[in-house]
Amino acid sequence: MTDAFVSENKNNGLEGVKLGMVKIAVLGHGVVGSGVVEILMKNHEGIAHRAKEEIEVKYILDLRDFPDLPYADKFVKDFSVIEKDPEVEIVVECMGGVNPAFDFCMRSLKAGKSVATSNKELVAAKGQELLQTAQDNNLNFLFEASVGGGIPILRPISQCMAANEISAVAGILNGTTNFILTKMITENMAFDDALRLAQNLGYAEKNPTADVDGHDACRKICILASLVSGKHIYPDDVYVEGIRNITLDDVAYAEKFDAAIKLIGLFRKQDNGKIQINVAPRMVSKSFPLAGVNDVFNAICVVGDATDEVMFYGKGAGKMPTASAVVADVIDCVKHRKARKYLYWEPAEKGMVADYHEEVCSMYMRLNGKSSEEIMTVANELCRECIYTDGVNEDEIAIITDVAPYSEQEKIAKTFLARGINVVSAMRTLKM
Amino acid sequence: MTDAFVSENKNNGLEGVKLGMVKIAVLGHGVVGSGVVEILMKNHEGIAHRAKEEIEVKYILDLRDFPDLPYADKFVKDFSVIEKDPEVEIVVECMGGVNPAFDFCMRSLKAGKSVATSNKELVAAKGQELLQTAQDNNLNFLFEASVGGGIPILRPISQCMAANEISAVAGILNGTTNFILTKMITENMAFDDALRLAQNLGYAEKNPTADVDGHDACRKICILASLVSGKHIYPDDVYVEGIRNITLDDVAYAEKFDAAIKLIGLFRKQDNGKIQINVAPRMVSKSFPLAGVNDVFNAICVVGDATDEVMFYGKGAGKMPTASAVVADVIDCVKHRKARKYLYWEPAEKGMVADYHEEVCSMYMRLNGKSSEEIMTVANELCRECIYTDGVNEDEIAIITDVAPYSEQEKIAKTFLARGINVVSAMRTLKM
Repeated sequence: MTDAFVSENKNNGLEGVKLGMVKIAVLGHGVVGSGVVEILMKNHEGIAHRAKEEIEVKYILDLRDFPDLPYADKFVKDFSVIEKDPEVEIVVECMGGVNPAFDFCMRSLKAGKSVATSNKELVAAKGQELLQTAQDNNLNFLFEASVGGGIPILRPISQCMAANEISAVAGILNGTTNFILTKMITENMAFDDALRLAQNLGYAEKNPTADVDGHDACRKICILASLVSGKHIYPDDVYVEGIRNITLDDVAYAEKFDAAIKLIGLFRKQDNGKIQINVAPRMVSKSFPLAGVNDVFNAICVVGDATDEVMFYGKGAGKMPTASAVVADVIDCVKHRKARKYLYWEPAEKGMVADYHEEVCSMYMRLNGKSSEEIMTVANELCRECIYTDGVNEDEIAIITDVAPYSEQEKIAKTFLARGINVVSAMRTLKM
Repeated sequence: MTDAFVSENKNNGLEGVKLGMVKIAVLGHGVVGSGVVEILMKNHEGIAHRAKEEIEVKYILDLRDFPDLPYADKFVKDFSVIEKDPEVEIVVECMGGVNPAFDFCMRSLKAGKSVATSNKELVAAKGQELLQTAQDNNLNFLFEASVGGGIPILRPISQCMAANEISAVAGILNGTTNFILTKMITENMAFDDALRLAQNLGYAEKNPTADVDGHDACRKICILASLVSGKHIYPDDVYVEGIRNITLDDVAYAEKFDAAIKLIGLFRKQDNGKIQINVAPRMVSKSFPLAGVNDVFNAICVVGDATDEVMFYGKGAGKMPTASAVVADVIDCVKHRKARKYLYWEPAEKGMVADYHEEVCSMYMRLNGKSSEEIMTVANELCRECIYTDGVNEDEIAIITDVAPYSEQEKIAKTFLARGINVVSAMRTLKM
């Protein structure tokens, strides 16, 4: 690859041209941070060609010692060394967590250094303040790696789709839960077994809450929603449901409806101008490409008024994919040292996030407690165009209800209960 | 959506700020050109917010008259009116074909106007000269819409994946052929019938050669390959095979191999440094996401050394998707009027494109003329790890050969013939 879409520098033929040098610091030498250093070394020449400058890692901040690394001399333990060194123009933050990452990023920006980060928790919690500080100091704060790992998503949305009004984003944003659901679907493995397998393979943490209960996906849909809506949307304002309660019966019914169960982060502009945003497992029609995204892969579907549905697919996590997205941001910082290329969204606006009860969707409901005939009679009273299936368990049917606000769906479920019909499980749908 | 990744302008809060105005000209008021005008009017406010300037269409060049349009007064028939008007800063070329589009684009650049085009034929034939002229004049020549219509692909490759060395690109780049193949696969429709349906629906032209014989896909893989390799690759140097000879028997065998037949534009860096590039129908394993891309949809899979496989999916053609990609380029031109953001590749290098016989792949071969046992005996002599299937026609089997250079595959086919076995059809594979 060559110097494409790259530079404000008029000179693109680099032969014989002495390149300048940009010095950077990497905060955190964990999975992503060490990947950043590795890629900058491995693809040094190509990156210098594209950035039009050589990029040198001057410092790596980590509390641990790495005496055996060839670049052991670059490690420092005191952030102020980096903060005070005017040679460092770009700081790469790969520590994770909000603190002290937020403090270090703010201090970097205030010290005149652009920042690139892979830290979704930080961006979801503090993105607006960091973007504001970057803007006030005419610097860049970039975070392509924070959503979808190595999948290009933030630039495509904000640049390539800039002529569109974007009405919705739906994504499989967490590889761990997608791996677990794939095992449940393709190998009929129960949730607990699939989780244990994911833990044994290193895909899930010992404490799997952040993944399994949807919090990780929530941070990512918040970042996408903030980018699209132009206002910061906080994870605390988002309804989140994980995948712990999904059973193999649900998986079997999904198959009968020609659908697959996926954990979906959803953003949608409502007709009343409010934003519907939530994370929940959904039955996704197999005619929709998100249904075919399996294993640890992520995919994000963006709906623009001109492009219609566009989908981005790839590895949403992992050392090298994520690190390569961070390095792409570093290259962009290098190319935009003088002419700032920024990303910005405004502070949150009170009341802009709609209650999840306002979401208009159809629902899967698994029903028993009466004969199939009796259940269908009641269902036909409650929904005009229900879809039915049976055949998973005796004396049980599953339905897909008509499209209606979630508050109406709750009333339907309550009516079933009042009529002696159990709603064994229920789930939102997507594209059904 | 808001001002994201957008501007060199330090001011991002636009409230109360009087925006400047950029005047543009649109060449050609056909499908895409009229879509460009429509989007600029429909999404005027959002686009002005993102571009930080209002964009006004001053002229539309078309030989036809459109007296009933509300903007009928903008039409001109003489390009020199546009060329000589210093107010026009950006020219949008949506005429199609190499001439006179090339002449008009060159004259625009020489007159100090940046150019955005959707014209893949032009970029594939003359991209290097236009990029060179744009660079010499410190202007932009952008063409996101020329590949994949509304699917973001050129910026993601050159910006988001800039830290990667890209080793391969494989794409379903033509919606018409993908529609025909989908009908053959899902509805068992013969090629001629599917083509007729595509023509009746307006997806295929009366003379379907450019689509059906692979020339359209060839132009697009050439543009992608030029971007990735940094040197212009001309369609004339590319081996191209269309889909006319694919039969429903081939489709049935693909199903038995758990694969789908797709017309694939392929770019791959060979170990010897040369570039393998071709367009051909291939059996694609269903475990690979390109196999699930149906109807008129396009998808492009890019393999980076850090990201691994990343896929981009959406509508590869059509008025509004394509026009929205052109307008995104216009917005980029507006934002980079002073600080040039360019795209560049060098002239072609003699001998850099490898012969198609050098491609290393496995092949599907459909064999008859002897008993299945006799055929399998010969196949086992020729391949160590063949995969077999029968069951489509009596006294016939199909095999997937071992991975080997295409020249070796031809020898295998000749040996079958020499031993009295007919190779009824043969096809390259992808990811099998």
